[in-house]
Amino acid sequence: MSAAPEPGSAPGAAQAQRWQRAFGTVGRGVADLDTPALVIDLDAMERNLARMAGFAASRGLRLRPHAKTHKSAELARLQMAAGAVGVCVQKTDEALALARAGVRDVYISNEVIAPAKLQRLAQAVRDLPTRFAIAVDSPTGVEHLADALAEAGVRRTGAIDVFVEIDVGHGRCGVAPGTDALALARRVSTHDTLRFAGLQAYHGSAQHQRSVGERSASLMHASQSVRDTLGLLRAHGLDVPLVTGAGTGTFALETASGLWGELQAGSYLFMDADYAANQAHPDAPAFEHALFVKAQVMSRSAHHAVCDAGHKSHAIDSGLPTVAWPPGLVFANGGDEHGILSAASAGGPLPALGDTVWLVPGHCDPTVNLHDFYVGVRGGLQHGRVERLIAVDARGSLG
Amino acid sequence: MSAAPEPGSAPGAAQAQRWQRAFGTVGRGVADLDTPALVIDLDAMERNLARMAGFAASRGLRLRPHAKTHKSAELARLQMAAGAVGVCVQKTDEALALARAGVRDVYISNEVIAPAKLQRLAQAVRDLPTRFAIAVDSPTGVEHLADALAEAGVRRTGAIDVFVEIDVGHGRCGVAPGTDALALARRVSTHDTLRFAGLQAYHGSAQHQRSVGERSASLMHASQSVRDTLGLLRAHGLDVPLVTGAGTGTFALETASGLWGELQAGSYLFMDADYAANQAHPDAPAFEHALFVKAQVMSRSAHHAVCDAGHKSHAIDSGLPTVAWPPGLVFANGGDEHGILSAASAGGPLPALGDTVWLVPGHCDPTVNLHDFYVGVRGGLQHGRVERLIAVDARGSLG
Repeated sequence: MSAAPEPGSAPGAAQAQRWQRAFGTVGRGVADLDTPALVIDLDAMERNLARMAGFAASRGLRLRPHAKTHKSAELARLQMAAGAVGVCVQKTDEALALARAGVRDVYISNEVIAPAKLQRLAQAVRDLPTRFAIAVDSPTGVEHLADALAEAGVRRTGAIDVFVEIDVGHGRCGVAPGTDALALARRVSTHDTLRFAGLQAYHGSAQHQRSVGERSASLMHASQSVRDTLGLLRAHGLDVPLVTGAGTGTFALETASGLWGELQAGSYLFMDADYAANQAHPDAPAFEHALFVKAQVMSRSAHHAVCDAGHKSHAIDSGLPTVAWPPGLVFANGGDEHGILSAASAGGPLPALGDTVWLVPGHCDPTVNLHDFYVGVRGGLQHGRVERLIAVDARGSLG
Repeated sequence: MSAAPEPGSAPGAAQAQRWQRAFGTVGRGVADLDTPALVIDLDAMERNLARMAGFAASRGLRLRPHAKTHKSAELARLQMAAGAVGVCVQKTDEALALARAGVRDVYISNEVIAPAKLQRLAQAVRDLPTRFAIAVDSPTGVEHLADALAEAGVRRTGAIDVFVEIDVGHGRCGVAPGTDALALARRVSTHDTLRFAGLQAYHGSAQHQRSVGERSASLMHASQSVRDTLGLLRAHGLDVPLVTGAGTGTFALETASGLWGELQAGSYLFMDADYAANQAHPDAPAFEHALFVKAQVMSRSAHHAVCDAGHKSHAIDSGLPTVAWPPGLVFANGGDEHGILSAASAGGPLPALGDTVWLVPGHCDPTVNLHDFYVGVRGGLQHGRVERLIAVDARGSLG
């Protein structure tokens, strides 16, 4: 029998060098930043943060921003300092990465079935000072969770909050509203270690419907599902402490319904090109683009300029980036490592070889997941300075 | 004045934990692998590797596989052990990550303009035992490169190989074939530290044309551009040692032309769903799918199953994943963290909650870039064992 293998060289050397190199630009002008770089306009982000916090506070709603967007403990703490009760994530390992980095209230707004994952979560419930919550949509999910807590030796009443997810129109996860939700909530209640915390009700596909009218129609349907389910559960004597859900595209509608007590919007912090293409709801605060990819023109023909950012630098699942600067440019997909820039109007100016280009990602969440850290810039993109680096703690936390 | 800031906590803690956890499965069955996991079927990959090496050797061509696909020093060394002369990359930091991990011959088959990047490259030319090459398509690129070498104190003749890229139909980077290429090659030749190594001629968009007829027409045009440019340069007394290019979709055509001396195909190692959709060229060896995402069903309705792999686990720029196992399933996009699986024929069976699903990524290169390591499995996906982890050394190396 051969000797046990050595762990070998885990990746991370190149990552650490990138961090050190970028760290050398702290206090210096943005011109010194190597490209492609994932940049936060800190002033714009802080305005977005305050506007959403103000909206939730003025309506008496809890705000639990979705950290699947930013995957950063530092940004989660900023949101909580501004009044958020905690954050959501989609993955067990996102929850653990943020909890280990000091985030004290984390909700996995998604289903987890694998015993190995639930074991990790149960150990964190036992060992960390963070309050955890999770969603379920199956008896298996409930039983595996209760088993994992028992195996980890967790015995205290209501050790974890459990939300029953209902499908309010997105057609992905969640039980059907009504009797299925009732049965699952009852099952949760049979376990002392689980606290039935309410309903998870998120209409994902409604977020990106362009007109307010379309989104209102979707949320009308979703609200009826929530109302019916709430009525049924309460008629059967269950306390339903909270309905949680909503996203950047619809939170004004969930708010107006009077049914949701907690908002989960995440993208408001950065605003991507896709959300910016939505017709704004009159009640929703205006959010600004705060996340950019700084790129550089590295090839130039008479007809186009090519920059050094392709879809290994920014996600294109929800459309290509727009060009924030210089004005008058259209971005076309140039593959993994290139973007092709053309003049928006015939004969319009093109940037020169070596020029800086600022891109607004089409979709912020998966763009952030391509990068190890943000570069926080203060004072605007053109003439600002690098203030600090912000780690994307849960980058690649898929499990 | 405030004290100098501390470097803070660079990301990497969660990454190291993932590596350690996966390392615990070495020697065990694939069932123990947490999901989503990026898995190499090592047997299939080794067959692909040998087939391409055999093809190149039988034609007397140099093989320089594109490491933008795998970003791994270990896989680069495997390719070189099988006869490859070195690897290509697209980015300076990819080159440096692989060179620092021991890869001795690396060609940046792309343009680099930024003095800071060229400075890093020049220092590596000076300090590392690796032989480097780079592409240029502008006088600025040539001069910045020569300046960086001079500033790094590199004086030896032909310290770096320089290829002049010509645009053979892709319409992205590269000078026009003919006189522009001649002028640029002459400029390269004026610098003692630069060795004019030949022409870079890659037709990216031809790779994914489905029919052999379409690809042949594109390569007919590309070959004529190469032939004309070679003739012009030689007529003006320039030695053109090599034409390098070709990809997994077209390499049989570049080979047949007799003009290319070096093949840069990369995706053949893994074969993704997009390349598999191409009509095969009769001269090209058959490649097998060797890269998979292992996923798990974590939600289930009467109509569909939802797995825990979305486009943070696999790239979708070239189409959605196909389902390798179980048979009879169609994958629909469920967003960043979910995939929605339906029966390919009405009433067909769906996997149960907790079941394993094996996905073939639509596009291997950007999928790999989402993961920190591969899990190498021996003995097939269904019943194989984890043999080793393979680091994606240059994941996120965008600069």
